[in-house]
Amino acid sequence: MLISRRKLIVEWGHCDPADIVFYPNYFAWFDASTANHFKEAGLPKPELVRRYGVVGFPMVKTGAEFQAPSSYGDEVIIETQITGFGRASFDVEHKLFRDEKLAVAGHEKRVLVTRSDDGEGLKSLPIPEEVKALFASEG
Amino acid sequence: MLISRRKLIVEWGHCDPADIVFYPNYFAWFDASTANHFKEAGLPKPELVRRYGVVGFPMVKTGAEFQAPSSYGDEVIIETQITGFGRASFDVEHKLFRDEKLAVAGHEKRVLVTRSDDGEGLKSLPIPEEVKALFASEG
Amino acid sequence: MLISRRKLIVEWGHCDPADIVFYPNYFAWFDASTANHFKEAGLPKPELVRRYGVVGFPMVKTGAEFQAPSSYGDEVIIETQITGFGRASFDVEHKLFRDEKLAVAGHEKRVLVTRSDDGEGLKSLPIPEEVKALFASEG
Amino acid sequence: MLISRRKLIVEWGHCDPADIVFYPNYFAWFDASTANHFKEAGLPKPELVRRYGVVGFPMVKTGAEFQAPSSYGDEVIIETQITGFGRASFDVEHKLFRDEKLAVAGHEKRVLVTRSDDGEGLKSLPIPEEVKALFASEG
Repeated sequence: MLISRRKLIVEWGHCDPADIVFYPNYFAWFDASTANHFKEAGLPKPELVRRYGVVGFPMVKTGAEFQAPSSYGDEVIIETQITGFGRASFDVEHKLFRDEKLAVAGHEKRVLVTRSDDGEGLKSLPIPEEVKALFASEG
Repeated sequence: MLISRRKLIVEWGHCDPADIVFYPNYFAWFDASTANHFKEAGLPKPELVRRYGVVGFPMVKTGAEFQAPSSYGDEVIIETQITGFGRASFDVEHKLFRDEKLAVAGHEKRVLVTRSDDGEGLKSLPIPEEVKALFASEG
Repeated sequence: MLISRRKLIVEWGHCDPADIVFYPNYFAWFDASTANHFKEAGLPKPELVRRYGVVGFPMVKTGAEFQAPSSYGDEVIIETQITGFGRASFDVEHKLFRDEKLAVAGHEKRVLVTRSDDGEGLKSLPIPEEVKALFASEG
Repeated sequence: MLISRRKLIVEWGHCDPADIVFYPNYFAWFDASTANHFKEAGLPKPELVRRYGVVGFPMVKTGAEFQAPSSYGDEVIIETQITGFGRASFDVEHKLFRDEKLAVAGHEKRVLVTRSDDGEGLKSLPIPEEVKALFASEG
C-alpha cells in the first residue's frame, strides 16, 4: 500500500510547560497527514469532496501510543499508510519518527460521509473501487 | 452598553514552554467571548444565523496588548463590550483580568456577513436596528 | 471511584467546515478533564507539582470512539473517572454526553513523571498511596 | 532588512464552519514565522535561548488586518520582516499572501526576556548588537 511522508518542525506553540508537544497536536498532525495521504495518492480531499459529494471522512475511532516526547525545534517525520478498507470505512496508521526512532504510533478508523437525502444529516458512502485502487501501489 | 463577563481557568494545554498562555489562545477566548456576548444579549450566534441568514461575523481587524502573563491554573475573567456600530460592522473590546488586574486588552472590528446572491461568496449585511438595541442596556 | 463532571459549550472555533467538533479538540478537553478530576479530588495539578516534584502526567496511550458529532452551540457534559492504578501509571475514562446520550468515549493511560536525577530527562514516579486514596470515594 | 518566507497549506482543522481559517490560527502561524525568521537569520530560537539565556520573546502587542479569507486546501505564503529594534523590543511585520494577493497583514511588538535575578519572574534583556546585525542584510 502507498506510504506517504511529511516533515514537520515542532513549534513553540505546539509545546506545553513541560516543553514537550501537547499531545492533542499529534492528532491534528495525523489528521493533516491523512489529508496529505489522499493528495499524494492523486485525490486531494477538496477534489474528493467535489467529485463524490463527500462532506469529509470523520473519525470513528482513533488512538495513539506515545513512546518518546518531542520538543520545541525538533524535526519529525510522519509516515502514513492505509492498512485496510471496509465498505464505507478505512483504517490508517501513522508513525511519527524523531531522530529515526519511532516516537508516536497513531491509528484511525474513518468513514466516508455525504449529506443524507433530507440534506440535514450525514450518511456513510461506500468507498468507490477507483478510490481504493489509488492506494494499492507500493510506497 | 451591555457588558458581559466570562470566567476561564488556564489549562495546561493553553500554555507554552515558558509556562505562560500561548497568545493565540487569547484570541480564541476573545472570539468565544464575543459569541457569548451575543448570547448574553439574548441573541445567541446560532439564532443570529437562523434569523438573519448570517454566515458569521468574520474579523476585519483585531489586536491585543499583553500587560501581564497568565499561567497554568490561573483563573481569569474576560469582560466584553461592544463599543460602536458601523453600517455592517461593530467594534468590540475585551479586558482580561487576573487577580483583579488588567492582564490583556483586546479589540476587534467585525462585520456581519451573509451569502452573496450567487451563493458562492460572502457579502456584508447591514446590522438590524433591533440587534443594535439589544446591546444598548447598561451592563 | 470518584466521578467528576464538567460542562462545556462547543465554540465556533472548535468546529471544522463540516460544522462538527474537530476531533483533536476532544483530546484537549479530556486533558483538561483529567486535570479537573485531580482538582475535584482535592489535589489540583499545580499542588501535585509542588507537593511531589511532579513535572506532569504525560500520556502513554490514549484513544477515543466517536459515536455522534457535536456542533457549534451544543452543550456537552464530560464525565471522568480513574479506572485503575499501576505502579506509576493510571487509567482514565472520559464519557462525553450530548443531550444525555453518549457521544464520545475516551480512555487514557498516563504516568506520573518527575525530573531524573541528572535534571535533564524525566523518570516515572510511583503513585503515592495517599494520592490513590483521594480517588477511592464514590462519585 | 532580511525578509523570510514560509509556505503553508491550509488544513481542514484550521478552518471553521464558514470554511475559512479560524483567525487565531493566523497568530499561531505568525508566531512560528517569527521563530522561522530568527532561524533564517542564522540564530534559531533554541540557539538564542542557549546562547543568551533567553526564555523567549513574549508578545507585548500584536494585531492583524484581514483582507481576504483563505479556505481548506489553499496554499499561502507568509513574508516576515523585522521593521525596527528598541532597546529590548523589536517590531515584526507579517504579510500573508494567497494567489499573490495580500490576504492578512500582521504586526507584532515583542520583547526579549530572561529569568530575573531571583529566578522566579522574567525581565527584559537588551538586544545584543550582534543579534541586530543578523537582520540587517537585504532579504
